[in-house]
Amino acid sequence: MTALDTWNDGSTKSAIVDFVERVTTDNGPDYVAPEARIAVFDNDGTLWCEKPMYIQLDFLIRRFAEQAQADPSLRERQPYKAAAEGDLKWFGEAVTKHYQGDDSDVKPLVGAILTAHHEITVDEHRGRVESFFAEAKHPTMGRPYTSCGYRPMVELLRYLEANGFTCYIVSGGGRDFMRPVTGLLYGIPPERVVGSSVGLIYRDTEVFTTAQPEFLDDGPMKPVRLWSRIGRRPILAAGNSNGDIEMLEFTRGMRILVLHDDSDREFDYTAGAEKALEQAAKDDWTVVSVKNDWATVFSDQ
Amino acid sequence: MTALDTWNDGSTKSAIVDFVERVTTDNGPDYVAPEARIAVFDNDGTLWCEKPMYIQLDFLIRRFAEQAQADPSLRERQPYKAAAEGDLKWFGEAVTKHYQGDDSDVKPLVGAILTAHHEITVDEHRGRVESFFAEAKHPTMGRPYTSCGYRPMVELLRYLEANGFTCYIVSGGGRDFMRPVTGLLYGIPPERVVGSSVGLIYRDTEVFTTAQPEFLDDGPMKPVRLWSRIGRRPILAAGNSNGDIEMLEFTRGMRILVLHDDSDREFDYTAGAEKALEQAAKDDWTVVSVKNDWATVFSDQ
Repeated sequence: MTALDTWNDGSTKSAIVDFVERVTTDNGPDYVAPEARIAVFDNDGTLWCEKPMYIQLDFLIRRFAEQAQADPSLRERQPYKAAAEGDLKWFGEAVTKHYQGDDSDVKPLVGAILTAHHEITVDEHRGRVESFFAEAKHPTMGRPYTSCGYRPMVELLRYLEANGFTCYIVSGGGRDFMRPVTGLLYGIPPERVVGSSVGLIYRDTEVFTTAQPEFLDDGPMKPVRLWSRIGRRPILAAGNSNGDIEMLEFTRGMRILVLHDDSDREFDYTAGAEKALEQAAKDDWTVVSVKNDWATVFSDQ
Repeated sequence: MTALDTWNDGSTKSAIVDFVERVTTDNGPDYVAPEARIAVFDNDGTLWCEKPMYIQLDFLIRRFAEQAQADPSLRERQPYKAAAEGDLKWFGEAVTKHYQGDDSDVKPLVGAILTAHHEITVDEHRGRVESFFAEAKHPTMGRPYTSCGYRPMVELLRYLEANGFTCYIVSGGGRDFMRPVTGLLYGIPPERVVGSSVGLIYRDTEVFTTAQPEFLDDGPMKPVRLWSRIGRRPILAAGNSNGDIEMLEFTRGMRILVLHDDSDREFDYTAGAEKALEQAAKDDWTVVSVKNDWATVFSDQ
């Protein structure tokens, strides 16, 4: 019924199918009851495309430009200046500098991120996200962001669900940035989206956003946050970067790492995934090659 | 099929049935799609008995006594002294003093609560909770705590689920104290339990408890936490105390307040519910009288 049609035959697909058969075989030695069949998926680079920049960064830059439009005094300051001038390079360099130990650009960037959508109701926030996805397109591929999900991964979600699994997203991306579109892109409802967040506050029968950071759901916070939200240990986890290592370690069962090695159909990079790839080799995680394992890449192909 | 058999016929039961019929009538003016039929329930005093003391407080006092047993120097200090001597009055008085503006006893109590189960894995923590529920009994009724759930409320959970609702617990009680037993008592899985928590930390492939307070899921934090976890606004909420007011206000649909007025079969009290009862009268919330609306009270009767 539900099949992995866009996965090429080979050892990767076999490993997935074999694992699912083992945990669903009644009375088998590896049987897992349906309620404990928890699968967790990173989002950026695992379920949808994260290059040339995070989709959420595009959302934020558009907001900075809008803020600079409304308040000209902001145009003298970063990151609003770069956003207003369409200087995307500034954002990439801020991150590069950060990794070189220089936070002079990242600090104002983080401040701007935290105040980009603060002091609005969660319903207003959802509206802004929905407006973005209704029009925004991927900068190099031209396709709508809502068509940037990986079709083989969406098939994997459905295949797991057809076998009694419950699938969650556990991402470093913003929880409330993802929630408005995870149903459309992945069939994952908001209650199964775990991600980074700002603090929220209750006032006059409404829940409002604040500029207070709450959780950065990356690295060692991923197992903490997923356990806090789900209360169970996953038996399958999928990621693609160093920020997913702890989530995969915490998982008892199948660990999947997506390797981006297809410059023709998507992107080819390992930056930020070096340690994860090392550990995958050492601990026998299942590495998914975009180039070799996927017959098609995007949902609309 | 699923019916409210232990609810007496009358205006309360009719109000519930009418509401459910309205939101589930296809093409009706009040129709709500199944995925948005979110119902949230307080736990202490709403789903299970909270008198003469919170069940979790019994769990903690037993732990303090155990700690005093292992470390005699603790027996000179509160709250370990009171726990070791079975002086339950001390705990009640500490809370009374707190409401009178004197935190001299509550401060060491909170410190003891935070360190009662710190620096153990979440699996070890679950084991301790399971051991407690395997043997502990209600101090005045003598029944196991696992039989202290309210049967009419469990029926209500099943009735709502049979009508496409998804039910969550949103309690001031400890999230990880409730999770091990909410399946057994209420048929609610761990991923649908929202509650107070300490911070967790990841180390060596395991998630550990800490002594850092994280969320106190009460009052205005209830709508914040339920929205953070679920990402949707409930259409039905049930509570019994002042700590539930904001959760009920945030809910668009049916608001239920359980009134404990049955000293024969359970307890008779309004302390801590005064404001909630006022608001219920003013805003036309549905007040459930234990005495008049419930044909039986506990799950095993």
